[in-house]
Amino acid sequence: MKVVIVGGVAGGASSAARIRRLDEHAQIIMIERSGYVSYANCGLPYYVGGVIKDQEELTLQTPESFWDRFRIDVRVRQEVTAINPAEKTITVHALDSGKIYTETYDKLLLAPGAKPTVPALSGVSNKRVFTLRTVEDTLRIRRFVEDQKPKTAVLAGGGFIGLEMAENLVEMGVSVTIVQRPKQLLAPLDADMASFVHAEMRRHGVALRLGETVTGFRQDGDSVLTLLEESEPLHSDMVLLAIGVTPDTHLAKEAGLKLGIRGSIAVNERMETSVPDIYAVGDAVEVTHFVTGQKALISLAGPANKQGRIAADNICGGNSRFHGSQGSSVLKLFGLTAVSTGINEKAAQAAEIAYDKVVLFPASHATYYPGAQSMAMKVLYEKESLRLLGAQIVGGEGVDKRIDVLATAIRAKMTALELTELDLSYAPPYSSAKDPVNMAGFMIEDLESGKVRQFHWNEVEDLPYDGSATLLDVRTAWEYQRGHLDGFRNIPLDDLREHLDELDRDKPVYVNCQTGLRSYLACRLLTQYGFTCSHLSGGYSFYQVVTK
Amino acid sequence: MKVVIVGGVAGGASSAARIRRLDEHAQIIMIERSGYVSYANCGLPYYVGGVIKDQEELTLQTPESFWDRFRIDVRVRQEVTAINPAEKTITVHALDSGKIYTETYDKLLLAPGAKPTVPALSGVSNKRVFTLRTVEDTLRIRRFVEDQKPKTAVLAGGGFIGLEMAENLVEMGVSVTIVQRPKQLLAPLDADMASFVHAEMRRHGVALRLGETVTGFRQDGDSVLTLLEESEPLHSDMVLLAIGVTPDTHLAKEAGLKLGIRGSIAVNERMETSVPDIYAVGDAVEVTHFVTGQKALISLAGPANKQGRIAADNICGGNSRFHGSQGSSVLKLFGLTAVSTGINEKAAQAAEIAYDKVVLFPASHATYYPGAQSMAMKVLYEKESLRLLGAQIVGGEGVDKRIDVLATAIRAKMTALELTELDLSYAPPYSSAKDPVNMAGFMIEDLESGKVRQFHWNEVEDLPYDGSATLLDVRTAWEYQRGHLDGFRNIPLDDLREHLDELDRDKPVYVNCQTGLRSYLACRLLTQYGFTCSHLSGGYSFYQVVTK
Ligand SMILES: Cc1cc2nc3c(=O)[nH]c(=O)nc-3n(C[C@H](O)[C@H](O)[C@H](O)COP(=O)(O)OP(=O)(O)OC[C@H]3O[C@@H](n4cnc5c(N)ncnc54)[C@H](O)[C@@H]3O)c2cc1C
Ligand SMILES: Cc1cc2nc3c(=O)[nH]c(=O)nc-3n(C[C@H](O)[C@H](O)[C@H](O)COP(=O)(O)OP(=O)(O)OC[C@H]3O[C@@H](n4cnc5c(N)ncnc54)[C@H](O)[C@@H]3O)c2cc1C
Ligand SMILES: CC(C)(COP(=O)(O)OP(=O)(O)OC[C@H]1O[C@@H](n2cnc3c(N)ncnc32)[C@H](O)[C@@H]1OP(=O)(O)O)[C@@H](O)C(=O)NCCC(=O)NCCS
Ligand SMILES: CC(C)(COP(=O)(O)OP(=O)(O)OC[C@H]1O[C@@H](n2cnc3c(N)ncnc32)[C@H](O)[C@@H]1OP(=O)(O)O)[C@@H](O)C(=O)NCCC(=O)NCCS
Repeated sequence: MKVVIVGGVAGGASSAARIRRLDEHAQIIMIERSGYVSYANCGLPYYVGGVIKDQEELTLQTPESFWDRFRIDVRVRQEVTAINPAEKTITVHALDSGKIYTETYDKLLLAPGAKPTVPALSGVSNKRVFTLRTVEDTLRIRRFVEDQKPKTAVLAGGGFIGLEMAENLVEMGVSVTIVQRPKQLLAPLDADMASFVHAEMRRHGVALRLGETVTGFRQDGDSVLTLLEESEPLHSDMVLLAIGVTPDTHLAKEAGLKLGIRGSIAVNERMETSVPDIYAVGDAVEVTHFVTGQKALISLAGPANKQGRIAADNICGGNSRFHGSQGSSVLKLFGLTAVSTGINEKAAQAAEIAYDKVVLFPASHATYYPGAQSMAMKVLYEKESLRLLGAQIVGGEGVDKRIDVLATAIRAKMTALELTELDLSYAPPYSSAKDPVNMAGFMIEDLESGKVRQFHWNEVEDLPYDGSATLLDVRTAWEYQRGHLDGFRNIPLDDLREHLDELDRDKPVYVNCQTGLRSYLACRLLTQYGFTCSHLSGGYSFYQVVTK
Repeated sequence: MKVVIVGGVAGGASSAARIRRLDEHAQIIMIERSGYVSYANCGLPYYVGGVIKDQEELTLQTPESFWDRFRIDVRVRQEVTAINPAEKTITVHALDSGKIYTETYDKLLLAPGAKPTVPALSGVSNKRVFTLRTVEDTLRIRRFVEDQKPKTAVLAGGGFIGLEMAENLVEMGVSVTIVQRPKQLLAPLDADMASFVHAEMRRHGVALRLGETVTGFRQDGDSVLTLLEESEPLHSDMVLLAIGVTPDTHLAKEAGLKLGIRGSIAVNERMETSVPDIYAVGDAVEVTHFVTGQKALISLAGPANKQGRIAADNICGGNSRFHGSQGSSVLKLFGLTAVSTGINEKAAQAAEIAYDKVVLFPASHATYYPGAQSMAMKVLYEKESLRLLGAQIVGGEGVDKRIDVLATAIRAKMTALELTELDLSYAPPYSSAKDPVNMAGFMIEDLESGKVRQFHWNEVEDLPYDGSATLLDVRTAWEYQRGHLDGFRNIPLDDLREHLDELDRDKPVYVNCQTGLRSYLACRLLTQYGFTCSHLSGGYSFYQVVTK
């Protein structure tokens, strides 16, 4: 069997290694356009920032090591320019020699990844306007920052790559402005959860120009102007364009393979394309979203690696299946960790799923043990079925742990109520006896069993401020004085029982506290004294961060 | 409804608070023998060690705060001395006044916990021989170490509490010896995994006297002698007895409640005892082990808290059920974290479950990003069904994350193969594109699909060393020279294909490398050239740590 692999990184290289493990006798050729294979895409921003110091760290394997260990014929700086499925051949352009040749295959695996989305804007090819995908891109940017010592940078786009680059540039002393059309950074989060990210970026001096549209770039002496639709241009020494990625699939398209959404390659669960003996994996393919069942593009390394292994199994005569991605992701941002899994509210609404949610601020570990940090956690579940849909967390320590637990629960198709039963490991330096994930389960159980009702930060302005409702803040007098919602009257929780007679039982009561716990307790109390009551999800602290 | 609760800490206090949330009108009395309620048992060793500095940090609630917030009538320093189920009364002894009185109840909840196991040894009541359960015990030990400045301590028992105390005493400059009959510390781990813990303890100067039986204690001037069955007595300034805990259930026994194993209280899934209107939770009760389905004692705070909440629901007319504990635990030991969930090999053997296992040493996060640490991970699964049974991990960063993911997978009754599909969050500072948990799944899949066979460290000495088998070490020459298994010949993996003709195809091949990865690759290669091959699980590094 002769296997040809197009693209030699996450999906391609994983697949190549697995094919060799499965079939010692196969001929395996891996063709890569750039000068490097098996490189750590995800580490590239950290090399620019000097966190990863050694260029060799960026590649996990080299063409030589692939040969020595796996007898894989790796051809770098060669581009596959055409596929001829009828003949089972590909055309290869050797970039250095200029030679063009044909290679036959029995099985072809496409792992070409995705390329930075580059809109057709004037000046986009300016040499101070960078994109980041390959090792070459990285070395180019690194050389630029070392030689030119830029003082200012504009990052167009506030997704994973933009934000990681922002952190790395800031740590090098560069003054960074992020500009993008969407009004929030980090699309996998809902806007409310993204507020914590915005705050962290600003705390580190990053200027955010959200809701602004870049219309082009222009050289201006030694700097570059980023032109905006409705504002003055931004001056900077460099620009990074990171507004998203687009499947790198012109080859597949020209070969007549069936395409999926946004130009991706359509594949089945076995990672087979519409054409026999051609497989595809990674950022280039359309996947089924594990939660919605809808088609989706999810450009992450975990799925690419797993799909590569699955395609290898099937290429070698096995029957492995990819059951979909749920988009679990994590991002380090200075002192913050921002994570998500499954779907967020925007996606649930788009998919017309009836959902509800809880928001909480649990501590990363027992508060009596030094160093506990609070995290903001949002968990979404489907009404009726109570199936878990997704979660988002922003905080410090232990955030990645909780999202992986929730990701596993979602994968297991657990209901939100089953979170209450998770038997998680506890000692004071690591967690609380009721882990944050258990706590989310308790809260959902309380909601769904009708023990409490909640209202949300975006509903605060629509509350009845005309006296027809009681608006209650149950924090301490001291907390209340430091800031509170207009129109809310303060009765501290511990005093509430003595003041019940001052409240009108015929009026609905809206309660708030700092994070939602005390207002929940107040609601339980009031409900049992005959009041109709609901409390502010996430409390005053969530309201404050989100509306700031 | 009048509810009386015996014991005011993890199970009792959680239940009390939940009962109030469910029923504002219930009368709730919580009776506690010690002087404190709602105390952080799990934090006590850290107060002795000065990590937790403020005594107030040790109690999450006080009798006063319980009254203010929950209108719970908390009575500390009062001991319940008898239950009269026929009359629905209890007898209470107020320890300070000496008063004895009767209290009626509609519902009674027993949450008396477990007490340190104190064997009937001579000298056990010596005032330099301590046990640790309550805040009072803690203050007593703290005062002793502050006043007497002990230089040496003997800890009898190497479970969670003994090891946490060892760490805290060492950090204070005390020279610590741990002595116990079992030949390994930390029973939830198998002996091989415990080797890492032994190494860490020794690295921090803790002397381990394993396999030694304490026969008594004797005062000797200002120090105490710990008498051993077969060795000279140990001199020290203090002794902590922490050989385990025993359900504190004499009350229940005397009241005629049905008992479970080792004197625990038998309860059903609703946490009801054999007597109507009497519930029991926490360390005092027998639980169903979630993995084996057998009865078990699992003395951990997570289950106690959850059971307290479940009992509260049922006391208030609900129908909540506890579906068993799986013993997920985590322990900080100097720079190490040691964790486990589900069952270990000893337990699987005892339960006569046919199991297999993998051992691996994955990195906590991408190795090219600074700071990655490797962890030792063992995952057990049932043969045939491939159901996950348990896992143990010892390492640094990210160990608690992986055990919680595995605990969740076990709870969801996932098979080991489903670990390959877990969609976990990845970025270089947090994980690898193939998370350690995925990796364990891949390895199990390879084993179960017959792609590879393994042998274990304890089988090394039984290999055929008579020339009837090929014993192969596929590490580099440099690694081999630094230490290798006797009788193993070195052919580095990358050279193996050129040396195949030197190997006898009729002889079985046993391969080892450093951690198991390269020997797996060698086995795949050799198998396809017609050899019968198996590889050493965990490799030379595991063998070395375990047999040292
Ligand atoms: C800066 C950066 C940071 C990232 N951080 C993370 C992260 O933290 N976590 C995460 O999960 N994901 C991250 N990702 C995404 C992750 O790297 C990708 O999801 C993953 O690499 C996709 O794998 P792939 O094999 O599909 O494509 P790639 O890894 O991109 O590999 C495709 C390769 O194919 C080559 N190629 C394309 N067309 C041809 C052709 N015609 N002929 C020959 N070769 C061709 C390309 O040169 C490329 O090297 C990051 C990506 C980038 C760029
Ligand atoms: C030092 C130490 C460290 C620990 N570390 C951890 C850890 O890191 N992680 C973990 O999960 N677990 C840990 N545990 C175990 C955990 O604390 C227990 O599992 C949990 O507290 C059990 O809860 P419980 O309510 O059953 O009993 P307890 O919390 O022990 O409470 C029982 C209370 O009942 C009182 N009582 C008993 N009999 C009577 C009576 N007749 N009348 C009145 N009062 C009575 C006792 O005084 C006691 O205060 C630790 C325990 C100790 C002692
Ligand atoms: C480096 C690369 C070629 C590795 O591919 P790989 O060989 O499949 O992956 P690993 O080295 O992690 O090894 C995994 C294999 O070793 C096995 N393994 C791991 N540890 C083992 C152990 N201790 N004992 C036995 N087997 C072990 C696994 O089961 C798996 O084998 P399988 O797939 O046949 O089941 C590929 O992942 C790559 O190019 N990565 C870089 C690019 C990238 O991923 N970028 C995006 C992220 S930055
Ligand atoms: C302190 C103690 C009394 C707390 O009991 P508790 O009130 O049940 O627990 P918490 O304060 O964590 O609150 C949990 C409740 O608040 C709710 N909650 C938490 N955060 C919330 C939020 N942001 N919004 C709304 N509700 C919230 C939970 O749903 C849960 O309510 P429920 O049980 O009615 O569903 C008890 O845990 C205790 O005594 N602990 C110390 C002893 C101990 O556990 N020792 C062993 C470990 S060291």
